[in-house]
Amino acid sequence: MPLLDSLTEALRVLPGVGPKSAQRMAYHLLQRDREGAARLAGTLAAALAEVRHCARCNNFTEAEVCERCLSQQRDASQLCVVEMPSDLMVMESTLAYRGLYYVLMGKLSPLDGIGPRELKFDKLVERATDGMVQEVILATNFTNEGEATAHYLGEMLRARGLRVSRIARGVPVGGELEHTDLGTVAQAFVERRGW
Amino acid sequence: MPLLDSLTEALRVLPGVGPKSAQRMAYHLLQRDREGAARLAGTLAAALAEVRHCARCNNFTEAEVCERCLSQQRDASQLCVVEMPSDLMVMESTLAYRGLYYVLMGKLSPLDGIGPRELKFDKLVERATDGMVQEVILATNFTNEGEATAHYLGEMLRARGLRVSRIARGVPVGGELEHTDLGTVAQAFVERRGW
Ligand SMILES: [Zn+2]
Ligand SMILES: [Zn+2]
Repeated sequence: MPLLDSLTEALRVLPGVGPKSAQRMAYHLLQRDREGAARLAGTLAAALAEVRHCARCNNFTEAEVCERCLSQQRDASQLCVVEMPSDLMVMESTLAYRGLYYVLMGKLSPLDGIGPRELKFDKLVERATDGMVQEVILATNFTNEGEATAHYLGEMLRARGLRVSRIARGVPVGGELEHTDLGTVAQAFVERRGW
Repeated sequence: MPLLDSLTEALRVLPGVGPKSAQRMAYHLLQRDREGAARLAGTLAAALAEVRHCARCNNFTEAEVCERCLSQQRDASQLCVVEMPSDLMVMESTLAYRGLYYVLMGKLSPLDGIGPRELKFDKLVERATDGMVQEVILATNFTNEGEATAHYLGEMLRARGLRVSRIARGVPVGGELEHTDLGTVAQAFVERRGW
């Protein structure tokens, strides 16, 4: 297969990219922006080699344990569970929270074959039962899948004797943290309830 | 800068990819499809190293001269000028044309700084005046920019004593070859007129 066709096919690995736009992208990379294309190829290879998951919070990092988890400034008695790194960044932006995080890197989604094992819930349990954590705050989205994930996690963590809370439904029902204004997310954190 | 952020930034080189979707793509590549991501990085690097422009038709190829240009089955007296490789593929699909091609890899677009020099019109002139070509068929799109390109090329090539034709406006005004049904494109070829 010509490399141009291989490239077009390889680009379809990107979410939301169909055949037509993959072809447009391939032309663009080879014809209009070879420098940017080389940067993309190099950065992607480097990221694949270097970026891993923090041993404590599961977020992306290039170290064994990320800076946030190592910080002495954070309250190690609170552990906030979010779906994605972008959700963590939203929580951080509110300035309402000073504890630590656990990033699921997804949500329960049986139709996509993503269950407790794929999301490595055992790693979260291990993290939450380190003896320091007093409260686990579930901050998954208020979508159907995010709610199902929170319910599952709530039962699982309470069964281990942990105190579990859920950020308040100030986040619009069916909404996602990433698309919610910071004040609402902050309020939702303050009004979290037992779970 | 963390590699994850570098990757997100590098992905924005892709046409139509904004900050949010670049971030989604970076997560997806690192989390959900590392194999596909590695294939993309490798294929992109290989394509950048190996894919060049055919010395005769200017289309993408991995050889000095592409297979189509070397074929003995094509009518070397006709040269069809198209904007992009995808347009060439549409012309081929009609089975109405047996001549050779020249691929501009774009169209005149003064606002984007793309003029006759950027499109290497001198390479087309050299190709069209090889002594074999009897007729140059302009098959640029019927958009404003495609029409302007055809007008410019028509004058330039006629001034060199070449016979120039334009595919018929059977292609809808304002339309693009890639989004036109094959029968219409075939008819437009048959009804090409002096230019
Ligand atoms: Zn961490
Ligand atoms: Zn060629």
